[in-house]
Amino acid sequence: MADVNRSWRLAARPQGMIKDSDFAWREEPVPEGLGEGEMLVRTLYLSVDPTQRGWMEMDTYMPAIGIGEVVRAGGVGRVVRSNAPGFSPGDLVSGLVGWQDYAVMGSTGFVAPFKLPPGVPPTMALSLLGLTGLTAYFGLLEVGRPKETETVVVSGAAGATGMVVGQIAKIKGCRAIGIAGGPDKCSFLTGELGYDAAIDYKSEDVAQRLRELCPKGIDVYFDNVGGDILEAALGNLAMRGRVVLCGAISGYNDMRNTRGPRNYLSLLIQRGRMEGFIVTDFAAKFGDAVREMAGWVAAGRIKDRVDVVEGLEQAPAALRRLFTGANVGKQLVKVSD
Amino acid sequence: MADVNRSWRLAARPQGMIKDSDFAWREEPVPEGLGEGEMLVRTLYLSVDPTQRGWMEMDTYMPAIGIGEVVRAGGVGRVVRSNAPGFSPGDLVSGLVGWQDYAVMGSTGFVAPFKLPPGVPPTMALSLLGLTGLTAYFGLLEVGRPKETETVVVSGAAGATGMVVGQIAKIKGCRAIGIAGGPDKCSFLTGELGYDAAIDYKSEDVAQRLRELCPKGIDVYFDNVGGDILEAALGNLAMRGRVVLCGAISGYNDMRNTRGPRNYLSLLIQRGRMEGFIVTDFAAKFGDAVREMAGWVAAGRIKDRVDVVEGLEQAPAALRRLFTGANVGKQLVKVSD
Repeated sequence: MADVNRSWRLAARPQGMIKDSDFAWREEPVPEGLGEGEMLVRTLYLSVDPTQRGWMEMDTYMPAIGIGEVVRAGGVGRVVRSNAPGFSPGDLVSGLVGWQDYAVMGSTGFVAPFKLPPGVPPTMALSLLGLTGLTAYFGLLEVGRPKETETVVVSGAAGATGMVVGQIAKIKGCRAIGIAGGPDKCSFLTGELGYDAAIDYKSEDVAQRLRELCPKGIDVYFDNVGGDILEAALGNLAMRGRVVLCGAISGYNDMRNTRGPRNYLSLLIQRGRMEGFIVTDFAAKFGDAVREMAGWVAAGRIKDRVDVVEGLEQAPAALRRLFTGANVGKQLVKVSD
Repeated sequence: MADVNRSWRLAARPQGMIKDSDFAWREEPVPEGLGEGEMLVRTLYLSVDPTQRGWMEMDTYMPAIGIGEVVRAGGVGRVVRSNAPGFSPGDLVSGLVGWQDYAVMGSTGFVAPFKLPPGVPPTMALSLLGLTGLTAYFGLLEVGRPKETETVVVSGAAGATGMVVGQIAKIKGCRAIGIAGGPDKCSFLTGELGYDAAIDYKSEDVAQRLRELCPKGIDVYFDNVGGDILEAALGNLAMRGRVVLCGAISGYNDMRNTRGPRNYLSLLIQRGRMEGFIVTDFAAKFGDAVREMAGWVAAGRIKDRVDVVEGLEQAPAALRRLFTGANVGKQLVKVSD
């Protein structure tokens, strides 16, 4: 066991795309003491999520990360020492470990860590069977509420959440259409994941393609990106169509100047609904959802895909990959074995 | 009975605020023959509605008015001759009479005319107990779904629909806050109509006043105006707040350049819902709703207010009054006695 705890601290509130200078690298001794109910966790994998960009800039559904604090991040780690009931050395846990080698974590509260279910690999616990997959599951099924044979369109479709949305839509008997950047991502969607069609927003006219592919309109649009693509989807909404607001990555680097969808009155013409959600609102149902999704994994009906960058040093670069669209599937950072 | 049918025809698709030259005045003989199921109706009052501006420019939830056609408008008239079963000379009917003295109307279909309930004055049949009041009723109760003690905010609150929204909110045990332009309208809201508070958007900072008046946030925001005021409301939305999209009069004179609400992601942070509707979707429940509202009128629990301009010649000017905010209550044109 190394005796140094390396960490990335937030050094400045980012402006636009994050820069290395927004973070400060620090090396300190591994914490010694543990309070009542606390445990020391060695980070194995970090989850890399668009929402972290928001946490760096302003209070949202969680308070902003303080300047000088370890960058907040979900991850999976192994318990090294424990004063927390129910947690023992060697246990694999998922929780807010942050950009560091070792985290002292409480075991209760809103963002309490939890033990990985037996047999679930750490990477899948952060992706398909983690908050990312749960976001797709609850956003699609509880907010979008698609009915069999309806058309579901998802943006950021080759990303961590998007890839799960389309696969669940197919399982539920819907048509699934993904919007992603570049031919490789598009063939990943229609080939490996079984989407009915994919639109390459880098080379195709998204509004025009949506018109062609959805002659009766879009019943459920799951939005991860905002901006022009949200407008294209609103412009092709079916009567009583639903827009699930999950994120708006196109605007996260310029949150104070987000542009609103100019054609939002499509919601009026089409009697549509646009609704936001935060996955933790459904926490009481997480267990059932994970069990259902694990069943789909076992039956070969749904696939996971992770994109792993090696080394804690690469955490800022890994986050940047989300905004350049470099990742296919869930972006992770491997910190230790 | 006059033997001339005067009418306003659409001469050009308006750009920006409507001009007199967008319309052509025509005088023709009153139609003689009637087809099977048709009736000839003498116009008494015309309903003046923001949605007419949309009809003049483009296809929306109804096709655009054709160039050369009589300007589409709701109204109340008296049956002069009838080949329509169930309609007799002398009956008062509400329907799409258009900007003209005499309309030949069918008696079936989506926008079929209907006889006024006994005892309902023609002006109230176009206002509180007409589509305008029904818009408030169904938009608030079926889309916004306020619960007792919740805070309901409505924009365009001294307009035809807005004035009804706040009064129904009060009947349902909610706090009602209206946004309107000028001190006269604001005192009309808090004085005559019983709103809990009013915000004068012409002299007050709407976002700031909403923060003060709604410390727990807005539970239901009924939007008639769009633009800055929609943004101010979204910025003060309560957790699980609902935005009812009824209209966006601030943008109707420039529909191709409507601005979207920049802070639409408040819907995500607050788990909010923004939903549009068209009152005719609730047609099957109109009878029950009118009976309930007529009961409130009889009990003195809700008031109507109409703003009448005299003469068919004034129809374009009357429509312009909506966009300058000149009207208090429902704008009507009186065409004949």
